[in-house]
Amino acid sequence: MPALVWSANENLKYVEASSLTLVGKAMPTPANVYHRVDVEKYGNMPKRVKTLFTYPAGLAVSFKTNSSTVVARWTTAGKRVMGNMTPIAQRGLDLYMYGDEGWMPVGVGIPTAGKTQHESRMVKALKPGEHRFLLYLPLFDEITSLEIGVDSAAVITAEPSPFRHTILIYGSSILHGASASRAGLAYPARMARNTGINFINFGLSGSGKMEPAVADMLKDIEADAFVLDCMPNPSPEEITERTRYLVETIREHHPGVPIIMVETFMREDGYSDQQMHERCVRQSEAFIEQYEQLKKKGVKDLYLIRDNHAIGTDHEGTIDGTHPNDLGFDRLVQQYQPQIMKILKRYGIR
Amino acid sequence: MPALVWSANENLKYVEASSLTLVGKAMPTPANVYHRVDVEKYGNMPKRVKTLFTYPAGLAVSFKTNSSTVVARWTTAGKRVMGNMTPIAQRGLDLYMYGDEGWMPVGVGIPTAGKTQHESRMVKALKPGEHRFLLYLPLFDEITSLEIGVDSAAVITAEPSPFRHTILIYGSSILHGASASRAGLAYPARMARNTGINFINFGLSGSGKMEPAVADMLKDIEADAFVLDCMPNPSPEEITERTRYLVETIREHHPGVPIIMVETFMREDGYSDQQMHERCVRQSEAFIEQYEQLKKKGVKDLYLIRDNHAIGTDHEGTIDGTHPNDLGFDRLVQQYQPQIMKILKRYGIR
Repeated sequence: MPALVWSANENLKYVEASSLTLVGKAMPTPANVYHRVDVEKYGNMPKRVKTLFTYPAGLAVSFKTNSSTVVARWTTAGKRVMGNMTPIAQRGLDLYMYGDEGWMPVGVGIPTAGKTQHESRMVKALKPGEHRFLLYLPLFDEITSLEIGVDSAAVITAEPSPFRHTILIYGSSILHGASASRAGLAYPARMARNTGINFINFGLSGSGKMEPAVADMLKDIEADAFVLDCMPNPSPEEITERTRYLVETIREHHPGVPIIMVETFMREDGYSDQQMHERCVRQSEAFIEQYEQLKKKGVKDLYLIRDNHAIGTDHEGTIDGTHPNDLGFDRLVQQYQPQIMKILKRYGIR
Repeated sequence: MPALVWSANENLKYVEASSLTLVGKAMPTPANVYHRVDVEKYGNMPKRVKTLFTYPAGLAVSFKTNSSTVVARWTTAGKRVMGNMTPIAQRGLDLYMYGDEGWMPVGVGIPTAGKTQHESRMVKALKPGEHRFLLYLPLFDEITSLEIGVDSAAVITAEPSPFRHTILIYGSSILHGASASRAGLAYPARMARNTGINFINFGLSGSGKMEPAVADMLKDIEADAFVLDCMPNPSPEEITERTRYLVETIREHHPGVPIIMVETFMREDGYSDQQMHERCVRQSEAFIEQYEQLKKKGVKDLYLIRDNHAIGTDHEGTIDGTHPNDLGFDRLVQQYQPQIMKILKRYGIR
């Protein structure tokens, strides 16, 4: 890569984002602090799974500053452009500020089209005083560097994570954030801001398939609860083959911790495409069958959230028949959050 | 441009979309049937306005077919990639089918990244029988060719427009469709499917500035009502200078037809950016002042829809502080549609 040359602006100074607090991490990642999983350590996971775990979906930088302006300069690896994601969500940034009404989005980092080097002013003309920020990282590209810029006379320092506990959610593209318009609107991020609970995004677009190697990685994570939102990617046969090993592996290594299985909504294209309809019905039947068998076997602290048209009934909640848009995600949060929180409460997680 | 070479598929046949029914047009456009305005005829409009009117925002192709599959192949001019739009919305396609529940999205045409030539299967495995379709065209790129493909043994024919009357909406990027995730979720398209009324999208991203040359073009359109959603782009001073000419020009050439002015919501970044806050307040004051002066002067059939937090109060309804995401658009439709329909009803438009 050629040396990076950035715009000159004497009125700004920059800090490495890695010197601030990184929220949403489940483990150290020596190769790159902005990865979600140490893909060297868990090298026998499928190749596509490892690639997706290098994307910082759900990670955010926590800091405070008295600057009137916040800018960013960052580089991305340059993954393929996706038709169903905005560039802002795919490889841009999403800045929230804490105020009287809680967390509020105040600006985005807009990536430069066709480039891997980006600079963007996210917010300006703020009221004087110190403010707390959360900066969400890209959903679908690897971050190779990130600096945050503030007024040269301002102070910027790390701020502790605003979230309590560790709830790990494992699953598909929907969890990953396809197709939120920006990273802070992925459903785990929304639930975290709503509740103050740290929901960790282990979404793997197209690849949340419950492979045994992924189950073996999950057993090393000391979470307070596990949510399995992984019905859409595996075939019905894979669901039947793999669910038991995944659930029993987590159960064995984390006794007493709730495991919540989430039934996914019927894909919207399943209302027109008869093949898709049949596949979704069979996935759902296999997933619920596995839940019932595990309960019958006596697996404790295992829960199932059934779908109740979580995506709505007007068919407008997805971009492409599969992936929720922000309207669909808003409805998912309204359905999932109270059901998940009700279960967590029984375990003192609130 | 090199000759187009498309995938060979013996099981499909193609028709020119221009041989079917084009919905959402306000005038003939000899240079390119997929333009919204004849930019040669109205050549003294600002350059950027003319460019934007070559994008087919709000246009849709109406047809019926008994095919089990619907595909598209199309070419676009290759306008710059926007950070706040999905490629599907910017230069892709959005297919709706009519069924028991009304219009339902059934698939999208995904453009090829970095190319101007695109092919996409939008829907497959449909139930046997004849179905009616509406295919929405790109919001932010010019279409230079479009063919629709169906099973080689199927029949595809033009279907009349499903919408009644002509309600022209003139305004900014929000009206234009930034940042809906797909074209059918822009607010005029949603209101048209909801009500059966033909809402025509004259949104001009960043350029809905009420220039006299645009007012002079609008006077030639025989609409049953005019909605002016053009508060965000002109400066407060331009609003004061230009609103009167726009409204009086429409009034003079279309006596008795309702003109509905819409006050835009406070930009979400106006809650953090003090300069933006001040600008929005001044725009709003200028717009309402103009409405009141015109009423005082005795301009008839003129209405104002005041903002009542149309974008919601949780600050999550935009992608970037300015442009609604699908959640924001859903809220706008819930606010605007009943207020607009109530006014239209008095004029027998229902």
